[in-house]
Amino acid sequence: MSSPTSRHPPNDHDEERRSTRKRRAILEAATTVFLHNGYVGTSMDEVAALAAVSKQTVYKHFTDKEHLFSEIVISTVNEASDPTYAEVLKLQDSGDVEADLRNLGRRLLARVMQPRLLQLRRLVIGEVGRFPELGRTFYERGPGRTVLALGAAFERLAERGVLQLDDPLLAAAHFNWLIVSIPLNQAMLWGQDEPPAPADLDRYVDTGVRVFLAAYGHC
Amino acid sequence: MSSPTSRHPPNDHDEERRSTRKRRAILEAATTVFLHNGYVGTSMDEVAALAAVSKQTVYKHFTDKEHLFSEIVISTVNEASDPTYAEVLKLQDSGDVEADLRNLGRRLLARVMQPRLLQLRRLVIGEVGRFPELGRTFYERGPGRTVLALGAAFERLAERGVLQLDDPLLAAAHFNWLIVSIPLNQAMLWGQDEPPAPADLDRYVDTGVRVFLAAYGHC
Repeated sequence: MSSPTSRHPPNDHDEERRSTRKRRAILEAATTVFLHNGYVGTSMDEVAALAAVSKQTVYKHFTDKEHLFSEIVISTVNEASDPTYAEVLKLQDSGDVEADLRNLGRRLLARVMQPRLLQLRRLVIGEVGRFPELGRTFYERGPGRTVLALGAAFERLAERGVLQLDDPLLAAAHFNWLIVSIPLNQAMLWGQDEPPAPADLDRYVDTGVRVFLAAYGHC
Repeated sequence: MSSPTSRHPPNDHDEERRSTRKRRAILEAATTVFLHNGYVGTSMDEVAALAAVSKQTVYKHFTDKEHLFSEIVISTVNEASDPTYAEVLKLQDSGDVEADLRNLGRRLLARVMQPRLLQLRRLVIGEVGRFPELGRTFYERGPGRTVLALGAAFERLAERGVLQLDDPLLAAAHFNWLIVSIPLNQAMLWGQDEPPAPADLDRYVDTGVRVFLAAYGHC
């Protein structure tokens, strides 16, 4: 039995869903166009055409090109960073810190090395002279947030006697960069977006955790 | 007494010196313009004007904008990387590896954090989709070269029983990124070019060396 309201003129709820759908289509299209053409090379016309909406609709949702770019940076970085944040919170209760750091490191590195995030990171770095706030947003919602959460977990692990450290935030930064630096900095300059082979990623994580625990583990 | 030749028409040697001087002036001007305007925003007219030479002279020396940009990347990275390379070669004979790693780390980090090199690194990362070879050149003449040299020195130090390691290149990459990752990755995204305070740089180096030696030092 079809609902009688489905043949009525659109109500507020339908309107809202359509708006959300259009917004998502615009973000999706804009990400593709920005990553392909760069910031300067992107036109709102092209974004509207790819999203199959009018240019007016694009402006209604995102004000201007700068706001649209900012939304893309925030949503892409949050998507990669949210699950890591949630996992790090559980780390403080770890019963096997080496195994848990390895598992966390694997997932953290896989997320950091996602092609879209690598491409966006390059674009933000290249445009940071023009948009310093976007670079800071990327940092604060990405590696900065991961390091803050890790710092809190490491502090608790030190209180429990599982780790030995004076400066939880520095230890957290060491952990983060021991895991991601080698493949990330290579990808930034080599320009390749395909993730390294799984065996290489495992090696970066396992050896990074080994170095970290040699310095911060309980002897 | 002035040389009689100084009033003669220019000879080959004078010609060569003038050409070298012009070449240097063009490179200097082009670096300024590229770093200020980005690759797309740079015109050969502007470079010629700032170098106070004709546009024909710019083309005679560097063929086109792409070659000019490539020359700048190579010479700027070499300038930072050459002295590190020379110092690393001496490391293998170290009688006090902790002190020598700290000294080396301080100089390495100071060179990596030079404003011009940071700006150029951002520009190359942002343009790597268009110029993948320039990114590879930056990598190979910069961090890649440092890691290769460190790997050879660490291998010799392991043979002497000063370090303990299975994989000298991996240990070298860990050392390099333990020293530079925190301030470098921050600078890439924050967009600030002033080097961090000397006390902060010292802290990154000293704690990086401590972590490295906990993992790879002789117990």
